[in-house]
Amino acid sequence: MTQATLAPGPYQSCFRCFGVPAAGSSHGEAVSCGARYPITEVRTRCERCGGLLDVEHDLLALQKTSGASWRALFDQRALRAPFPYTSGVWGKKEWVCPDLPDSAIVSLGEGHTPLVPMPRLGAELGVPDLWIKQCGHNPTGSFKDLGMTVLVSMVQHLRMLGRPVPAVACASTGDTSAALAAYCARAGLRAVVFLPAGQLSDEQLSQPLAHFATTVALSTDFDGCMALVAQFCQRHGVYLANSMNPLRIEGQKTLSCEIAQQLDWQPPDWVVVPGGNLGHTTALGRGFELLRALGLCQKTPRLLVAQAASAAPLYQAFKQKWHFTPLVAQPTLASAIRIGNPVNVHKAIAVLRRLDGAVELATEDELARAFVLGDQHGLYCDPHTGVALAALAKQRAAELIRAEDRVVVVSTAHGLKFGALKRAHHQGDPSQASGAAGTPGAAPAAPRNPPLRVAAELAALEDALLPRLL
Amino acid sequence: MTQATLAPGPYQSCFRCFGVPAAGSSHGEAVSCGARYPITEVRTRCERCGGLLDVEHDLLALQKTSGASWRALFDQRALRAPFPYTSGVWGKKEWVCPDLPDSAIVSLGEGHTPLVPMPRLGAELGVPDLWIKQCGHNPTGSFKDLGMTVLVSMVQHLRMLGRPVPAVACASTGDTSAALAAYCARAGLRAVVFLPAGQLSDEQLSQPLAHFATTVALSTDFDGCMALVAQFCQRHGVYLANSMNPLRIEGQKTLSCEIAQQLDWQPPDWVVVPGGNLGHTTALGRGFELLRALGLCQKTPRLLVAQAASAAPLYQAFKQKWHFTPLVAQPTLASAIRIGNPVNVHKAIAVLRRLDGAVELATEDELARAFVLGDQHGLYCDPHTGVALAALAKQRAAELIRAEDRVVVVSTAHGLKFGALKRAHHQGDPSQASGAAGTPGAAPAAPRNPPLRVAAELAALEDALLPRLL
Repeated sequence: MTQATLAPGPYQSCFRCFGVPAAGSSHGEAVSCGARYPITEVRTRCERCGGLLDVEHDLLALQKTSGASWRALFDQRALRAPFPYTSGVWGKKEWVCPDLPDSAIVSLGEGHTPLVPMPRLGAELGVPDLWIKQCGHNPTGSFKDLGMTVLVSMVQHLRMLGRPVPAVACASTGDTSAALAAYCARAGLRAVVFLPAGQLSDEQLSQPLAHFATTVALSTDFDGCMALVAQFCQRHGVYLANSMNPLRIEGQKTLSCEIAQQLDWQPPDWVVVPGGNLGHTTALGRGFELLRALGLCQKTPRLLVAQAASAAPLYQAFKQKWHFTPLVAQPTLASAIRIGNPVNVHKAIAVLRRLDGAVELATEDELARAFVLGDQHGLYCDPHTGVALAALAKQRAAELIRAEDRVVVVSTAHGLKFGALKRAHHQGDPSQASGAAGTPGAAPAAPRNPPLRVAAELAALEDALLPRLL
Repeated sequence: MTQATLAPGPYQSCFRCFGVPAAGSSHGEAVSCGARYPITEVRTRCERCGGLLDVEHDLLALQKTSGASWRALFDQRALRAPFPYTSGVWGKKEWVCPDLPDSAIVSLGEGHTPLVPMPRLGAELGVPDLWIKQCGHNPTGSFKDLGMTVLVSMVQHLRMLGRPVPAVACASTGDTSAALAAYCARAGLRAVVFLPAGQLSDEQLSQPLAHFATTVALSTDFDGCMALVAQFCQRHGVYLANSMNPLRIEGQKTLSCEIAQQLDWQPPDWVVVPGGNLGHTTALGRGFELLRALGLCQKTPRLLVAQAASAAPLYQAFKQKWHFTPLVAQPTLASAIRIGNPVNVHKAIAVLRRLDGAVELATEDELARAFVLGDQHGLYCDPHTGVALAALAKQRAAELIRAEDRVVVVSTAHGLKFGALKRAHHQGDPSQASGAAGTPGAAPAAPRNPPLRVAAELAALEDALLPRLL
């Protein structure tokens, strides 16, 4: 389809995204070649220049509604609207995918997760005005649901338009496959999940099996799975649900809206987010920019991206004036962000430059101490949230973040996905300290809370417990 | 403290609760002996008659506010209020624990979980207007958080009043210990959890360990733990957080408010809830009664309590015109409701009689088929939700529930707590089909979705997958 025939409304536009500086850009900053495609066209890269795609909204049309009117609409829908407008994503449908018919929307009630003030934990980290955004309270236990509801709804729409889509597929070892499987199950669509055999934890395997996704264990690593799924999808018209798909970013950017909304439309000074493939970072930053552009908020927060030291390509770029070089990621407990060549790195760098963002890293010890500390305060942290808390503490110590700043830490997944890791840590069984094969065998040095074994007699109990209660 | 010195506001009043019909009551119906105690008095039974206690609110005072004003207040607080009034529980503070100072409240952002319409699943069960209330999306993954936030807040209040409370303790094998540990961690209170050694699943052990609760594994069964924890608490001034505590019911009854609120204050025709110790059933029914009494809703729904066939004392009572006899519960996959002598049975029977409730049971096969079916539709069901879905299908078939009825099924916990059970089912490993020792070894006959092992080559993939995509 040529550009002349595009209907009004959001397009997919090219976002050039090279690993090296492109002609006319500095340090890999993105410049679009100008190509545009309809939102319903199934493609992952620009056919003209090979760049990634972005969804581009008609900002002038959106600006015809005042910031106050948008705020009132979003507030009202959050509680008192017909399903799926109570969803945190679909309550902002005009900003996400305005032309999608409501009948195509596939929602499990994602979004509107709690934003919890953590003053005691914050005081320990040096920032008493600390809040945790609990994305792990989404239906499948991670923030991935915010994007997956949009992607699967678009597939449903394509099918309603009569396009043949035999299945939706992804390669993943964790949260993405869970979200894809659940939303496809909800919609009655076939999902196919490609996993590297023997390289994922039990928790990660349970979700696609339970949702009856065709779950294929391949005798290769994650990169091998990714290459095969791309080939297979291309050849057989299967819809590829990978991180390049710009629709997922559209859903994920509603997270910024929720944070602002929950803070009475006053964005915090800082948002701290773990960074892997960097779609989430991109979405967060763009969401806050949109809030300002449309008059809902007066300012944007700064972003601190937190990476595991074993897999910190964005940190390296930050230290090199945003000059990015891919690297080979090493094992880390924060397995979901073990990525050396993030697919959305240039989108993320562009938004971080605009929002004066920063990047910090956490060693295995630092991230383990931090997630254990979070649990001690009543959170149930995944290791990635540990990376974010550790990075926050370091940047507070370095005084980039001030003691009086309001800080929101995005907790990306529920700790229930990492029960085996926690149990092994507290029981002191280093061989089990990692959920997935290929991550470190040694449990880092964070405090432990092993269970006590006591005979079933009052005297024995008193001997064991009374010294601890004094 | 005598009754004459009681301050205005809610009391704890006696709720007589015998296993056999008491004098002046029929078939175990409850009659209070009239004793009243201050809400801040630490006690589990009436000192005059030995009955359980209840919290009694000043209904006349609450009725001075109109139903419309309550509705507006609750709606407004859900999104736009200072923490913790955004909590589903504390947004209804006047109905829960009005005199508690805000500074004592210990909240993790519980409540306001999604209510998701499930028309396709409903159609399969014969009730297209089916909704699932996702209580598993609470902070620790179960509905227990709604009550535990109230109990732990009261302990915090007592400490602020200068009362010595060295710790809070419970005996539990699952959701209660997780909730107690998390809320105590949040508050900086010491929690002690008594568990029967070797009789709980890995998932159940991880949560109290992670929250640094003192986790005591006793060489006895659950009843042995319960007896010891009661003795220990009595002797050493430790606060006992068991199911007899009426404060937990106060928090849990806000669930009815949320359901009504999410359905625009039109309660459904039926609410289906799994029943074990029956505090949740009691709370749900009383919540809907309060909504009607205070003019927020015009009607109350009927309740269908769902029990596992292996542990169905309430079902037996229902069949005997509500004459209750305790029994010895047998093993079931629905381990959290394996209770033969439910502590709140007479409170529950009273409310079920008032609301024209019913009870149904589900065999192991029926409950397993039902939770697998829920997963196939994008839910991630715990086995107890399977019991509820199976009971619904049976009462639809029996035509107590009509095809046009609006039905809300309460999903009590997140499937992420039962990943091992699901995995074992789909991989066909019956020895692992139960998370906890003492539950059945044989996986019931529900459909399975085992993973496929395929060589990492396109041709092999096509051979394995293409027949499934046609």
